[in-house]
Amino acid sequence: MLVVMKRDASREEIDGVVARVGELGLTAIPLPGAERTAIGTFGVAAREAAEQLESMPGVQEIVYVSRPFKLSSREVRADDTVVRVAGVEVGAGRPLVVAAGPCSVETKEQTTATAKAVRGAGATLLRGGAYKPSTSPYSFRGLGESGLRILAEAAHAAGLPVVTEVLTPADVDLVGHFADCLQIGARNMSNFSLLDAVGEQRRPVLLKRGLSATIEEFLLSAEYILAKGNPNVILCERGIRTFEKYTRNTFDVSAIPLLKRLSHLPVLADPSHGTGKWYLVAPVALAAVAAGADGLMIEVHPSPDHALKDGFQSLTFENFASLMRTVPAVAAAIGREVALPAPV
Amino acid sequence: MLVVMKRDASREEIDGVVARVGELGLTAIPLPGAERTAIGTFGVAAREAAEQLESMPGVQEIVYVSRPFKLSSREVRADDTVVRVAGVEVGAGRPLVVAAGPCSVETKEQTTATAKAVRGAGATLLRGGAYKPSTSPYSFRGLGESGLRILAEAAHAAGLPVVTEVLTPADVDLVGHFADCLQIGARNMSNFSLLDAVGEQRRPVLLKRGLSATIEEFLLSAEYILAKGNPNVILCERGIRTFEKYTRNTFDVSAIPLLKRLSHLPVLADPSHGTGKWYLVAPVALAAVAAGADGLMIEVHPSPDHALKDGFQSLTFENFASLMRTVPAVAAAIGREVALPAPV
Amino acid sequence: MLVVMKRDASREEIDGVVARVGELGLTAIPLPGAERTAIGTFGVAAREAAEQLESMPGVQEIVYVSRPFKLSSREVRADDTVVRVAGVEVGAGRPLVVAAGPCSVETKEQTTATAKAVRGAGATLLRGGAYKPSTSPYSFRGLGESGLRILAEAAHAAGLPVVTEVLTPADVDLVGHFADCLQIGARNMSNFSLLDAVGEQRRPVLLKRGLSATIEEFLLSAEYILAKGNPNVILCERGIRTFEKYTRNTFDVSAIPLLKRLSHLPVLADPSHGTGKWYLVAPVALAAVAAGADGLMIEVHPSPDHALKDGFQSLTFENFASLMRTVPAVAAAIGREVALPAPV
Amino acid sequence: MLVVMKRDASREEIDGVVARVGELGLTAIPLPGAERTAIGTFGVAAREAAEQLESMPGVQEIVYVSRPFKLSSREVRADDTVVRVAGVEVGAGRPLVVAAGPCSVETKEQTTATAKAVRGAGATLLRGGAYKPSTSPYSFRGLGESGLRILAEAAHAAGLPVVTEVLTPADVDLVGHFADCLQIGARNMSNFSLLDAVGEQRRPVLLKRGLSATIEEFLLSAEYILAKGNPNVILCERGIRTFEKYTRNTFDVSAIPLLKRLSHLPVLADPSHGTGKWYLVAPVALAAVAAGADGLMIEVHPSPDHALKDGFQSLTFENFASLMRTVPAVAAAIGREVALPAPV
Repeated sequence: MLVVMKRDASREEIDGVVARVGELGLTAIPLPGAERTAIGTFGVAAREAAEQLESMPGVQEIVYVSRPFKLSSREVRADDTVVRVAGVEVGAGRPLVVAAGPCSVETKEQTTATAKAVRGAGATLLRGGAYKPSTSPYSFRGLGESGLRILAEAAHAAGLPVVTEVLTPADVDLVGHFADCLQIGARNMSNFSLLDAVGEQRRPVLLKRGLSATIEEFLLSAEYILAKGNPNVILCERGIRTFEKYTRNTFDVSAIPLLKRLSHLPVLADPSHGTGKWYLVAPVALAAVAAGADGLMIEVHPSPDHALKDGFQSLTFENFASLMRTVPAVAAAIGREVALPAPV
Repeated sequence: MLVVMKRDASREEIDGVVARVGELGLTAIPLPGAERTAIGTFGVAAREAAEQLESMPGVQEIVYVSRPFKLSSREVRADDTVVRVAGVEVGAGRPLVVAAGPCSVETKEQTTATAKAVRGAGATLLRGGAYKPSTSPYSFRGLGESGLRILAEAAHAAGLPVVTEVLTPADVDLVGHFADCLQIGARNMSNFSLLDAVGEQRRPVLLKRGLSATIEEFLLSAEYILAKGNPNVILCERGIRTFEKYTRNTFDVSAIPLLKRLSHLPVLADPSHGTGKWYLVAPVALAAVAAGADGLMIEVHPSPDHALKDGFQSLTFENFASLMRTVPAVAAAIGREVALPAPV
Repeated sequence: MLVVMKRDASREEIDGVVARVGELGLTAIPLPGAERTAIGTFGVAAREAAEQLESMPGVQEIVYVSRPFKLSSREVRADDTVVRVAGVEVGAGRPLVVAAGPCSVETKEQTTATAKAVRGAGATLLRGGAYKPSTSPYSFRGLGESGLRILAEAAHAAGLPVVTEVLTPADVDLVGHFADCLQIGARNMSNFSLLDAVGEQRRPVLLKRGLSATIEEFLLSAEYILAKGNPNVILCERGIRTFEKYTRNTFDVSAIPLLKRLSHLPVLADPSHGTGKWYLVAPVALAAVAAGADGLMIEVHPSPDHALKDGFQSLTFENFASLMRTVPAVAAAIGREVALPAPV
Repeated sequence: MLVVMKRDASREEIDGVVARVGELGLTAIPLPGAERTAIGTFGVAAREAAEQLESMPGVQEIVYVSRPFKLSSREVRADDTVVRVAGVEVGAGRPLVVAAGPCSVETKEQTTATAKAVRGAGATLLRGGAYKPSTSPYSFRGLGESGLRILAEAAHAAGLPVVTEVLTPADVDLVGHFADCLQIGARNMSNFSLLDAVGEQRRPVLLKRGLSATIEEFLLSAEYILAKGNPNVILCERGIRTFEKYTRNTFDVSAIPLLKRLSHLPVLADPSHGTGKWYLVAPVALAAVAAGADGLMIEVHPSPDHALKDGFQSLTFENFASLMRTVPAVAAAIGREVALPAPV
């Protein structure tokens, strides 16, 4: 941390900061410059402690040097983490995984048909929502526990592990009973009680980036889970909010190589939420693969124009199968393979 | 809702949409135009249902006409709502209320001294956090239940009702036992399980706008609480995330008159989080009053350079008292008064 | 500038950076820490030069300490600047000025009537556009030189100085012939050729903040004009682009006290573009005054529903007069006065 | 256009809007609904004219149905446009082109060496800046005309056409004398005088997306050039401003398929500015190819840590050559080829 003093800071103000830094248990080294003095500090302090300095007389600003995330950082752990979802390995150069399925579990027929279709096209995980966050209280909010049952049965029939969202700490046990991987949605990336709760169990967690979260905030949310003792975290880029009106979100493709540089955790890409338009899903999925993603997460529905939620961003079975025929070629171009579904 | 067809949509595609609109229980009126056909629809449909149309062949886009919020809307309830926090009335042209106090409850001494000081300067409510959301798991997360006790005692001694944040549904009862008003923080504006939980009890709820929430999303979050049967919702503008680096957030002063035009709910302003810099708090607080806010929420600390959290945005007792001497004049300029604290 | 090395940077990499810093004419002071080494540098270097260090082996990031704006900074000039527009003084605690008039000059009648009406209500400057930037090439782009003539005549008749926009370097002389103050619009805040051109003459310049500009970028654009030798720069906050859909822009009220803290230049507020909705103009104008603005810039039209441009954000004569009756009371609440138009 | 009335709009207000729509030369069809009346309009009106309706009594909002861009739209021209830059064809499924070279022309040696190196690695166009926009007036602003000469000589020696930026209308002829393609930079995307000027000549124009521009605004800027009669416009996605601090901009990969769906114009990708970090350039370049870009624009410098501008986002010769070895495989995966440089 560097404490930058105002140009006209007095001797007393500088001495005051040096003394206060000492009280915080840090070492201070004043660095007098041509225009102003800066005070370098060394040692470990909570950021809150450091922020106190900002309100001292003579201080212009505080400049942070250390990165606030630790356990998720490649500096702390150089080697890539492999997360195992039931038998499927994710990350560390393993073959790419594809999680596919409906936005929402609606009926047994819809879910079973979709599970079968996505497996047939090469998906390795089944995704689907039983608890749905929705901006409006009047929207469909999911089938709840009965949806979990339908999902688990469809997954079992298709021989695919299940990824599904959990919305609140009280549901973690129940969802974990049916799911192989717990998803934390974008709106809950900063729901710290929920992050604590999924950190206290051992199911893998697929953590989605928040709608306007920075990469640092995203890794700090992963840090919550890791700090509670659960090392099985998969990051998922799913688009951020921008000014664009033609798309629902703007998929941040650079987040993929950036996260892999900063962190050892696996990184998936969700081009369905990342664009919000079915006709953009395939090109953006291929882009994510070319940029180095460890896998994809795709919404598929037997009849998108009858979907209870997000039909406009769901692929038909045919469009998904078509995408899955191109993914291996793009992966191969950068030296990666695509995982095959486990034999049933 | 208007379904806009592509320029080259075929007769069959148009007929297909008209039929599907009928299946959704709506009435369709095709409106042929010079360039393309649009199909007007009438009747009430869930937005999800409507979105299905967007993936039909020949459809270019869906244009929504109705506003998705109802109970919070001035169209449903024309008269301003008054929310009562213990004995203090908020909204509907009542005298402006000022909630002040520390970001975090740290000690009994700090909290009691602050409560006394803010009451002396004219605050009508005591704010303070016992459960603190924090981007990093390594930061101070509040004293929890013992913090609630300290806060309640300090408030009682000063004769002020208490506003404090609740982070998770499981804590609603406990926090409600100590607090007169439950605060939902910005990071939880879209934590729908928590909104449901505070909607199911009757304490007033102070709902803060999310970091990148639109006004429509903000009112939809209020709608969650209202839809569960709790009419006592106070909205609070607290700044949104922008590209600016000198400030922590950008206070959206236009949100105040806009919310009051769209909704009947009271609107407070939090210039402490809204700017993140103590030296911007007073001018932005006065701006909020001039724009028609029903009150203010201000962080005050006896010694901001020793605060455990957010010291750089807290006012000293002196600076708060100085601000409170100017607020009544600005309020009077637009025909409003400032509430006096209740006699102890 | 601080060069932060990677945690595992080698001795050679550190020495390499120290040597390169020396080549750039700066002094390097290595600061070994618990986790990593940082290298403090002293001396003046172009930011480009500094950025070269970022691509050296072992370097994690560059942290800038100095502020890049100089002539616009309060550190270089402590006292407030007063800018004189014809006889009207702006800034430095002088009475608030109000520039009002139509978005576009449409006809002699419209412009003359508006000039008379706004002067009658207390405006001290006449604003109006003869050259209009427009997102679409098919929109009205202004009357050009004949618009300038109409504007100048209307201003002369009403006894008000003129503020009007210039779009391109080739027009600076012509516009300067008719105008007392040249406006640089938001879309041209980073049109550096145009900033150079208005810096090379001596008419006052009203510089509007860009749609997504940070405060630092805004002051750097002012710096372009000052660096060419024209000290007469007035800053104008006019709203920034955010995610909000109900408003055209989001007025950043905190920019007013922040700019006045960082810079000695006068600061006006344009709530017409800042909100884009006529019904938000008055509350946001009052907010800007309460926050310390040196004046206002308001669009007024005799018949907003017949305006060729931006009618939905223009005040009628009546609404403008009503606003002008409240402005002095808010100004007085913070110890300011409002300027009176000069006697004709 | 749809005029949505307020819920409580009176008969007179509705009739007033219908009458005003008629005055604007449009046909109005009132559509009474359960909650409110909407008024459909048919015919062609300037958006300004339409906006007048928004300030009429009883009107809640205006909903636009038509797209404001015409000549750039695929609805007006279904077939892809091919733009020829000297002998190099861009767009319409032609082999991908790669424009590479230094951010700024610094010396004859640097430029010649870079031109030779990028041609050797497979680039088909030489890029380089002689006029540089810069946020600060104290930064390097380019060599100007002597830079153009150096660039043209280096390009001639390497047998590559030249792309270079023009900043102001007065320089269009001069830059056009030396360049085969004129670049409009991101900061000038809304410099309408400059767009007019490059529209009035016939050199191809490479138009970069503005820092916070929407896709619609981007296409409207292209429309300015097309409307003046120059059909040779190449669009270039180069990243948008977001909240992220680790990157300079956020590359919007979905813009590529979206632009190609909405428009017939060719689309290039600039991952150098799009990320601002050399280590993200290659993965994002490959992502852009996988998403369907018609080519790439890449900054290359012999010694990035000595570059006068943007060294931290420039590739070394080696890194560029390495990228160029992978591009063809990714292109092939989606059925595209990469252009070869013309024989010298």
